[in-house]
Amino acid sequence: MSVSAEIICIGTELLLGEILNGNAQYLAQQLASLGIPHYYQTVVGDNPTRIKKAVAIACDRSRLLIFTGGLGPTPDDLTTEALADFFQAPLAERPEIIADLEQKYAHRGGFSPSNRKQALLPVGADILPNPAGSAPGMIWQPRTGLTLMTFPGVPAEIKQMWQETAIPYLRQQGWGQETIHSRVLRFWGIPESVLAEKVSEQLALKNPTVAPYAGNGEARLRITARAKTEAEALQLIHPVETQLRQLTGLDCYGADEDTLASRVGELLLAAGETLSVAESCTGGGLGEMLTRLPGSSHYFMGGVISYANSVKVRLLNVNSGDLEQSGAVSEIVATQMAQGVKNHLATDWGLSITGIAGPGGATLEKPVGLVYIGLATPKDSVQTYECRFNSQRGRSWIRHLSILTALDYLRRQLLILAQ
Amino acid sequence: MSVSAEIICIGTELLLGEILNGNAQYLAQQLASLGIPHYYQTVVGDNPTRIKKAVAIACDRSRLLIFTGGLGPTPDDLTTEALADFFQAPLAERPEIIADLEQKYAHRGGFSPSNRKQALLPVGADILPNPAGSAPGMIWQPRTGLTLMTFPGVPAEIKQMWQETAIPYLRQQGWGQETIHSRVLRFWGIPESVLAEKVSEQLALKNPTVAPYAGNGEARLRITARAKTEAEALQLIHPVETQLRQLTGLDCYGADEDTLASRVGELLLAAGETLSVAESCTGGGLGEMLTRLPGSSHYFMGGVISYANSVKVRLLNVNSGDLEQSGAVSEIVATQMAQGVKNHLATDWGLSITGIAGPGGATLEKPVGLVYIGLATPKDSVQTYECRFNSQRGRSWIRHLSILTALDYLRRQLLILAQ
Repeated sequence: MSVSAEIICIGTELLLGEILNGNAQYLAQQLASLGIPHYYQTVVGDNPTRIKKAVAIACDRSRLLIFTGGLGPTPDDLTTEALADFFQAPLAERPEIIADLEQKYAHRGGFSPSNRKQALLPVGADILPNPAGSAPGMIWQPRTGLTLMTFPGVPAEIKQMWQETAIPYLRQQGWGQETIHSRVLRFWGIPESVLAEKVSEQLALKNPTVAPYAGNGEARLRITARAKTEAEALQLIHPVETQLRQLTGLDCYGADEDTLASRVGELLLAAGETLSVAESCTGGGLGEMLTRLPGSSHYFMGGVISYANSVKVRLLNVNSGDLEQSGAVSEIVATQMAQGVKNHLATDWGLSITGIAGPGGATLEKPVGLVYIGLATPKDSVQTYECRFNSQRGRSWIRHLSILTALDYLRRQLLILAQ
Repeated sequence: MSVSAEIICIGTELLLGEILNGNAQYLAQQLASLGIPHYYQTVVGDNPTRIKKAVAIACDRSRLLIFTGGLGPTPDDLTTEALADFFQAPLAERPEIIADLEQKYAHRGGFSPSNRKQALLPVGADILPNPAGSAPGMIWQPRTGLTLMTFPGVPAEIKQMWQETAIPYLRQQGWGQETIHSRVLRFWGIPESVLAEKVSEQLALKNPTVAPYAGNGEARLRITARAKTEAEALQLIHPVETQLRQLTGLDCYGADEDTLASRVGELLLAAGETLSVAESCTGGGLGEMLTRLPGSSHYFMGGVISYANSVKVRLLNVNSGDLEQSGAVSEIVATQMAQGVKNHLATDWGLSITGIAGPGGATLEKPVGLVYIGLATPKDSVQTYECRFNSQRGRSWIRHLSILTALDYLRRQLLILAQ
């Protein structure tokens, strides 16, 4: 039995594929940042027999079992009962949970009978309070050397419970003494295999390790160090990161939480310049991505969603003759959209996207996946960039790549101008 | 050993929480639609010993093991080797894979030595072709009554391989003879617990079963039937769905793949009316959501992202005196934004959102989470709706709820006007 943790997510909706397992991702990140090794995740449905089988396997290989889901008020919420049964502990109603639920439900039609089962916990278990929702979890050591923690399935509730109660508890119990620290370098415009060969020497390192992977249209390198403290881990990571950045140049756009939008934001802030956008096939997604960041109002003024051609003409001064002659998906329309939004919103930069996201709208010369990006610069020139994305990948993927490619195009221009 | 399948996702990036396990979700949906029972999912890192342990457990409880990840060209891609080792089968290079890879890499700098290991498969395994990427998978029966399928980690590649090769193979092998069919009813504006009590009688049914759950800000009811054919399953589901819809009325906005945006689109199409949007705190997200749907250009004309106040005045004719007096987040500005975009884009409806998504920008009277929705109707009236979302839930959640609440507000008005 190793001193590792295991995440066990309970919910038939996961087995039916109705939801993404974001809880496993969150808890995995949290365990990694505490340096708690974690080698397995299990998903099992709302079935007491199979929950107990999963627990039996997990007890054999892990000492900290973290459960999500199955704590709600409905009859298919069975996690607590299954755990109590497996470890043969009786359930007892906790008056403090009843009182808490009564108070929480006071303003929304009152505590309902179905909530009463949420107050049942195995004898010996501690309440893991849930300030953001109804279902409390528990922290329980049903036998020496084995700790269980249960959380509901609602992501925001898990996060608060983890931060406020689980982390202090784990640290106090001596978990999280070593740290595994990772840093992820992010790349746009270079395939994973090309990247991996550029940095093949670093891929052989032992501490930190360097591993390439791909996701969401971008290639990444994960640098992972194991050390006593985060500071020591960072010291191991730093020189390797420097080497990797030197080897990859402009293709590396950032690290960790950086996004193309956040990098663009930083560069605009540094230059004291403003941006507006004109979007056709992306329908607002470029603005949405830019404004995910708090503080984006310092450099992002807004934009025009010119989905219909009439809007391109009325709000962006696109020439209707050019529209008719070259079509909405053309270099000249991308140019005029970028220029139009920059002028109309009085910004330093204007960034436009017009393309065919599909599945309809294609012609022989203009296939699905053809996208033009226009960029009006502070020097009043307009540049365009033609993309031909794989039409097989579908509408949402083409829109996603269009937005990120536009941001990367702007990023590179900002970097070149700043030099 | 039951005749069920199991999904085993391999990748240290999953254990580190760097990516969401969308592959498990996709495969789970696919198994469910084929009626192949599936009771467990396992995630394990790129470690041959632990991969083999996970395989040992899975062999004991499932007869079809579906693997994702670890087929790439880099040294940490170990799935095939681990499986060959576990079942003690030698690996052999497949010339047809080498030929395929050489062709695929011809136009991007050539086949690289690291790709050669992707051509190694256990003796006895069949190639599972990967038309969309480099790494092929395999279909292998290492012993009687046990089938393995391996897929790479890239979602788009898995999907194509699953559809083109795995489904025909499974059907031919006699899997997927019974079907489990689910239908999900979707609700906006009613909490899960209130919903569950409204339909408590249906929650006790056996076939179909009805289960409530919550996600993404909405409550849902999953109706699941097991039958020989999909048609029979649908016959079991239909009367229960009718009862549930009668019990829940307008709060039920749709089913399965329906979204609030798709329902709004259907209602606008049916009415022959058009829509434009004016967005402040959501920065384009409302337009983005509306244009996810192919064909949305039939009713969605576009909009204005009026992130800066100057854009509200210049492009939407918001009165600058009102802006100064009442602030950008106010009923009157929401009203003028909706009216302004409807007029400017000449649409039947104009929908606006202005609010404080946080974390900054709040005042004593106007907390984070205060959002106004404005709706200019075809009858030239403007209605507004004030939302006070929980400020604790953070910026992206408040933006998400703002968009969906605005769409739901429009949906209800469209339904009322259509009556």
